[in-house]
Amino acid sequence: MPEQVSEQTTNRLSLYLRCLNELEASGVRTVSSKVLAAKFELNAALIRKDLSHFGDLGVRGVGYVVRDLKQRLRQILGLDQQLNVVILGAGNLGFALADYPGFRQDGFRIVALFDNLCDKVGGRSRSGVPIYDICDLGTVAKDESIAIGVVAVPAASAQVVVNAVVEAGIKALLNFSPGAIRVPPDVKLKSVDLTVSLESLSFHLARGDGSGSGKKVG
Amino acid sequence: MPEQVSEQTTNRLSLYLRCLNELEASGVRTVSSKVLAAKFELNAALIRKDLSHFGDLGVRGVGYVVRDLKQRLRQILGLDQQLNVVILGAGNLGFALADYPGFRQDGFRIVALFDNLCDKVGGRSRSGVPIYDICDLGTVAKDESIAIGVVAVPAASAQVVVNAVVEAGIKALLNFSPGAIRVPPDVKLKSVDLTVSLESLSFHLARGDGSGSGKKVG
Repeated sequence: MPEQVSEQTTNRLSLYLRCLNELEASGVRTVSSKVLAAKFELNAALIRKDLSHFGDLGVRGVGYVVRDLKQRLRQILGLDQQLNVVILGAGNLGFALADYPGFRQDGFRIVALFDNLCDKVGGRSRSGVPIYDICDLGTVAKDESIAIGVVAVPAASAQVVVNAVVEAGIKALLNFSPGAIRVPPDVKLKSVDLTVSLESLSFHLARGDGSGSGKKVG
Repeated sequence: MPEQVSEQTTNRLSLYLRCLNELEASGVRTVSSKVLAAKFELNAALIRKDLSHFGDLGVRGVGYVVRDLKQRLRQILGLDQQLNVVILGAGNLGFALADYPGFRQDGFRIVALFDNLCDKVGGRSRSGVPIYDICDLGTVAKDESIAIGVVAVPAASAQVVVNAVVEAGIKALLNFSPGAIRVPPDVKLKSVDLTVSLESLSFHLARGDGSGSGKKVG
């Protein structure tokens, strides 16, 4: 049974990977946690702690070998194999996600968009992702070994669509609909609530931390 | 000087507020942290700890009065006044955000989209948000007391656009562009990196530990 690793640690591993990509691109071969932290405004002790969950990844007197650590992180994050992704909902958000460059790098392949509107089915996103009828989800999921479903439908239809994704045998869901969503225990659900992000900014504006003035705008 | 409150706590306050809205809508008047935790799959001890940062919000033997706690949380989150928001970038993501229902409730008003493409400027999003020339950002920001700028432009132009937002006097930024962004210390920046969310799912798939806990990221 693998050691329990927190959501925060997982998220930071992604960030470290991004930093290492940048370092490698600029020709850096080895890096210490201290230099990594200073360069990318991170916490050196936290980097060492996060990485220590996965064995001894550093080299004494050297720090980390950029290429090796990068490869190891890709492996830990399951990025050493291509993961096929479908997006549910061919509205603005669905199209934005289908064409989002960040999704298309790093081993994720956006295979298809799904919608239930006849005039959308058969079309393609700007980057060429085809739009299928939601009724064909089960078949596509099986034929294309879909690993992840991204839910970008209005809140009112979210749970129905999530149920269809679960029934299609997809075990990981990224949900953009606001509101509570239920999935069986063997399915991993991650929700991105955009309102929470705005409210967190609002909180900081209200307290006036950072801005010094403490003035409310409205 | 207000007490330092973590980003995680702030995000959870938003979630509690959402739960309280639901409870109030279904006619519930009082709730204990235990019942709140059970109903929404939260942690009762953590609810009490998070709320304790803001004084004594509970009533002995009753728990929390739903309406009072809701009002207090809205106040803490700075949602008791309307906050005006602009979106930079009138592409798919910009339009999706402009028409996202979650943004339009809760005191946020999407005032305008900005772009630098002539054929977009002068148009409107589906929900009626007007599209202005990015050159007019400074004027609109001042006239409409814009509190928050949402950056939804391609990574290559993100820093330039962020600089323009900062120059327009906007003190809070929600950034959707992947890659590192720099802002002065008096500006609060929150980045939503969608790739990090996908990689976290990939991590769980690689380890094979499905869990339907519905972890939220903001």
